[in-house]
Amino acid sequence: MKAAVLHAKRDMRIEDRPRPRPEGTQVLVRVRAVGVCGSDVHYYTEMCIGDQVVKTPQPVGHEFAGEVTEFGPEVTAVNVGQRVAIEPGRPCHRCRQCLEGRPNCCPNVVFYGTPPVEGALQEFVIADQEQCIPIPDAMSFAEAAMLEPLQVGVHAYNLVSCRPGDWAAVVGVGSIGLACLAMIRAAGATRIVVTDKLDYRLELARQLGATHTVNVTRDDPAAAVKQITDGLGADVIYEATNNADGLNQAVSLSAIAGRVAAIGIPPVDDITIATHHPRRKQLTIQYCRRSAHTIRQALELIATGKVDVKPWITHRFGLEQVSEAYELVDGYRDGVLKAVIEI
Amino acid sequence: MKAAVLHAKRDMRIEDRPRPRPEGTQVLVRVRAVGVCGSDVHYYTEMCIGDQVVKTPQPVGHEFAGEVTEFGPEVTAVNVGQRVAIEPGRPCHRCRQCLEGRPNCCPNVVFYGTPPVEGALQEFVIADQEQCIPIPDAMSFAEAAMLEPLQVGVHAYNLVSCRPGDWAAVVGVGSIGLACLAMIRAAGATRIVVTDKLDYRLELARQLGATHTVNVTRDDPAAAVKQITDGLGADVIYEATNNADGLNQAVSLSAIAGRVAAIGIPPVDDITIATHHPRRKQLTIQYCRRSAHTIRQALELIATGKVDVKPWITHRFGLEQVSEAYELVDGYRDGVLKAVIEI
Amino acid sequence: MKAAVLHAKRDMRIEDRPRPRPEGTQVLVRVRAVGVCGSDVHYYTEMCIGDQVVKTPQPVGHEFAGEVTEFGPEVTAVNVGQRVAIEPGRPCHRCRQCLEGRPNCCPNVVFYGTPPVEGALQEFVIADQEQCIPIPDAMSFAEAAMLEPLQVGVHAYNLVSCRPGDWAAVVGVGSIGLACLAMIRAAGATRIVVTDKLDYRLELARQLGATHTVNVTRDDPAAAVKQITDGLGADVIYEATNNADGLNQAVSLSAIAGRVAAIGIPPVDDITIATHHPRRKQLTIQYCRRSAHTIRQALELIATGKVDVKPWITHRFGLEQVSEAYELVDGYRDGVLKAVIEI
Amino acid sequence: MKAAVLHAKRDMRIEDRPRPRPEGTQVLVRVRAVGVCGSDVHYYTEMCIGDQVVKTPQPVGHEFAGEVTEFGPEVTAVNVGQRVAIEPGRPCHRCRQCLEGRPNCCPNVVFYGTPPVEGALQEFVIADQEQCIPIPDAMSFAEAAMLEPLQVGVHAYNLVSCRPGDWAAVVGVGSIGLACLAMIRAAGATRIVVTDKLDYRLELARQLGATHTVNVTRDDPAAAVKQITDGLGADVIYEATNNADGLNQAVSLSAIAGRVAAIGIPPVDDITIATHHPRRKQLTIQYCRRSAHTIRQALELIATGKVDVKPWITHRFGLEQVSEAYELVDGYRDGVLKAVIEI
Repeated sequence: MKAAVLHAKRDMRIEDRPRPRPEGTQVLVRVRAVGVCGSDVHYYTEMCIGDQVVKTPQPVGHEFAGEVTEFGPEVTAVNVGQRVAIEPGRPCHRCRQCLEGRPNCCPNVVFYGTPPVEGALQEFVIADQEQCIPIPDAMSFAEAAMLEPLQVGVHAYNLVSCRPGDWAAVVGVGSIGLACLAMIRAAGATRIVVTDKLDYRLELARQLGATHTVNVTRDDPAAAVKQITDGLGADVIYEATNNADGLNQAVSLSAIAGRVAAIGIPPVDDITIATHHPRRKQLTIQYCRRSAHTIRQALELIATGKVDVKPWITHRFGLEQVSEAYELVDGYRDGVLKAVIEI
Repeated sequence: MKAAVLHAKRDMRIEDRPRPRPEGTQVLVRVRAVGVCGSDVHYYTEMCIGDQVVKTPQPVGHEFAGEVTEFGPEVTAVNVGQRVAIEPGRPCHRCRQCLEGRPNCCPNVVFYGTPPVEGALQEFVIADQEQCIPIPDAMSFAEAAMLEPLQVGVHAYNLVSCRPGDWAAVVGVGSIGLACLAMIRAAGATRIVVTDKLDYRLELARQLGATHTVNVTRDDPAAAVKQITDGLGADVIYEATNNADGLNQAVSLSAIAGRVAAIGIPPVDDITIATHHPRRKQLTIQYCRRSAHTIRQALELIATGKVDVKPWITHRFGLEQVSEAYELVDGYRDGVLKAVIEI
Repeated sequence: MKAAVLHAKRDMRIEDRPRPRPEGTQVLVRVRAVGVCGSDVHYYTEMCIGDQVVKTPQPVGHEFAGEVTEFGPEVTAVNVGQRVAIEPGRPCHRCRQCLEGRPNCCPNVVFYGTPPVEGALQEFVIADQEQCIPIPDAMSFAEAAMLEPLQVGVHAYNLVSCRPGDWAAVVGVGSIGLACLAMIRAAGATRIVVTDKLDYRLELARQLGATHTVNVTRDDPAAAVKQITDGLGADVIYEATNNADGLNQAVSLSAIAGRVAAIGIPPVDDITIATHHPRRKQLTIQYCRRSAHTIRQALELIATGKVDVKPWITHRFGLEQVSEAYELVDGYRDGVLKAVIEI
Repeated sequence: MKAAVLHAKRDMRIEDRPRPRPEGTQVLVRVRAVGVCGSDVHYYTEMCIGDQVVKTPQPVGHEFAGEVTEFGPEVTAVNVGQRVAIEPGRPCHRCRQCLEGRPNCCPNVVFYGTPPVEGALQEFVIADQEQCIPIPDAMSFAEAAMLEPLQVGVHAYNLVSCRPGDWAAVVGVGSIGLACLAMIRAAGATRIVVTDKLDYRLELARQLGATHTVNVTRDDPAAAVKQITDGLGADVIYEATNNADGLNQAVSLSAIAGRVAAIGIPPVDDITIATHHPRRKQLTIQYCRRSAHTIRQALELIATGKVDVKPWITHRFGLEQVSEAYELVDGYRDGVLKAVIEI
């Protein structure tokens, strides 16, 4: 089978590999669609995220879906031919985090594409049966691959929720920002301000439910939000940039006693915050990590049409074009929001 | 001026009274619309709710709106001619409940129509300026009178919230049940089961967003909810009946670890609950009382069209017909949901 | 090996049985101490709790500790000779309740002594290694058997917590009531009212930290609490009776906006509550079920001396005297609080 | 009467002023004790905190107690001669923050000693009757002046609470850190690590309940906490330094999914945080501001001996020595923790 193997910065090669065999409760999944995530691109351009370093060549990718083609002798929950989205993390189910309901924080989790665990950019991948989420017939594989970023938004929302009639802001509107937007829109927020640097992304946000947008290269987002919210600020803010100043901006948009969901991954470890603002406002900053038991919500929201992830997908590529796809996403070119590799 | 004065059970008389004069921070409101609430009808038929007894003749009514016609020398916030909805409760702002953010639980609250405080079924009523909520030009007085029951639903929702993709049930669908339905629909619940004994109310619920309805005189609501929710039960349930068995039914519809908002006022003090069910499910039963700081949400939801209270109003009467209106509501006749007295 | 087998109401027989063999991740535990719980006595006198019925003869008992004597080939976490308390429930780790952090609500849980699962009143019992909690050398087996009821109190506290300086009440002071008392005392509640029908239990509560006690056969607990709490009522109340009126009493002791933990198991399914009280007070009633991930807290509290479970144990019996022990507990005789079977 | 008036940096002068007269609901308080807070010293050395600037000469000081000597015609709640602590903030009771239970966040609050509002370093001060907290006979005025910093700790605890058996850390142990320590100790935390740069403060913390202390100039606090907490980290952390690196340190001490209360006021506006740590741990950072409806808890804790604020007071001065007191506190000299000006 073929696999896209990351060897060095911006050096991803299509290679032949032996097809793995499922054992025990494992399932062999024929991969059909893999989304390109900002963190994947980070590995592609830097070979690391913080202290998570690609030391030996490996495939990346963790947003994916496919078909079950084979399974181990202990599998009971899936069948050959079943169309499934894959939950990228497999937690230990025994540690304190798992027992207390935070499998996303499990220190023993095995997560696709986080080195040294291999990612999904391969024709076939082994998964445990508990990671296989059956998808409806009407859902395409590319759409199913969007369940992972959608769940990141669902999780952030579950940690920092709002109420019908509340006012909300989203800082940075890549696919995670769009997922947050989808959630607060579904949750009945009545004033939704989305900020970004790129007009084409703000335009997409407007189509998908933002009531107001602010291009931060031209306008002051805090002043804009103040005006939109009768001088009070936003009740909840979802920070989903890869920018060192995103958190500061989120704080500046907040109402007194507001709540900020910090989801984005800045390019540098040390960011600067003007700490007297959150203190005087008595803010809550809730950092968010991946997602936990959000699949039912995500499937419901798509099935009922309350959330539509299809407009997130702006570009599609074959496995052979994977480097092209990564370069496109890295350069924010051609109006790219989410690129999907279809295999 | 004229007033509808409750003298005895089912004995409400239109009488002439002197028009009151506003002092200090008081405002004189020309009453234009008063909703008929189930609790008003309770006083009409029983002269009491529990130990709250009508001892001397008085007007009832607390869901209302009107125009400012005069104000005391210390008023700064409203003007003559302003169209306002009236917040029926005036809390003390100094007790523990007020300080901790629960003015609805203030033991010193003065609340229209709760004996011995007089109600709104009069041509003119005194209110404090802080109780006057300016309403948009596009909102009719009858619609503005619905802000009070809507806020009861907003408050219940704020105490027992759900998330986009969650599953919810409403037990009993008078105006409070409709308010709860409006909230969970706005909040993105994807499966919404509404139960009642009256088909015409269930039909209205279906038009206003219920995904499923159950007439409990014909079908077993627990079995129905089980089937609708893949065997799991509802995540949140809003009990809004005036029925002694409403709470038991709400419990029976709940998922494990579900949450029940208990809002309805049963006709008897002692109700029976099958207590092993909530215990085995580890339920949370949250009793709800009136509403607290919900006006911004309520106005936003109406202004943005996320909630429409106009269909709640099925009947309109003049002040002279007030007894007729009360008898109609008491008898659940003519498809009545909410009757409004327009003055 | 010997086992105490429940054959019929009040008919428990000591019988010989083959010693079981551990497989996979299983451990064979030589049982050294088993606490007698009210639910065990319920099976002893009624052969059922609600629809959980003892259909074939079996041992009961779920509060226990012992020594590891043998283990299956996949065991990695314990050793022969290790002294352990046993977590009585083994959840599935895969259902919604488990994933969301509520293994105590797992519908697939296997729980010792809940029919048809056999209980601990045997010389040897099989447990999974994940159920084995190593205990300190200084902790006796009888004390270790108290970890289970202590955890029920820890769990109730975690669901309904209080703050240093808050006021609390415990309704019914068997071992679960004592566990709740231990928690609120450790948590810094400054006024702690305990109610019961039995003076000797109230006396023990006073020794273990209650600031006030009320014998409900002589005094009105609501009046007493009102006086003790400057007319306000208790902020949190823990109901731990086996009495049909316990919940009503708990509600009557509560402050406005108070929170009630409902833990006790009434003798009848249908209890009556005066529902207008919790509604006017806007109470939260939180039903509690067993315990979830509370072992670290429980061990810490004992190790640091903040909680002492030794005074709970009033009587000790050998395995041959098990019927005598059950009769004693059933009759509330001889000042019994907790009887432990030592094997 | 005499007053200590701040004219310029490190220029505080004792001046004669006319004694004010109480009107309406006002009370004239003969000031008897005023604590020296770090924020007071900040004004003394910098004439500002952020954009709050001393523009015209004024007294500072907000931690105080005294005797009622006179009152306005509308006062009903206090009497001449009554010994009272003063709640330094007077909120508006009408804004959204007040209505929702956060008077500490009221944008209209009038707070002693925050420019341009005058502070308490005067022989007589006007207060509203609602700010007067009667104190027990056994409580000295100096002790009563400690109610304000204690309440800051109570408030931080109420926002970020822990459970009996949890593990906690306090970063920085001035009087606010001691207040946090007092709370978590009263709340039953079993491992309490306190960090600071000053050995004499750590020694005091140890006497007042810290189970472990770390001098951060000699030892690595994260490594120490890791060892103390079995490798897991602290469940809750209270940051109460005036140091730009305090928040980073607090984050480093936290367990996965821990919660940080950010209370301290750094000397600079912009602080740097290593943001990948809180993100990977999914931390909650809760900023805290002053205190809200905490007086009942504070008085209870002192009355029952669960908290003792007397050891906080290390130095006492007369009004004439106020500059000396401020210099001492500014210099961390002579083992100073809290200096009190007694008048």
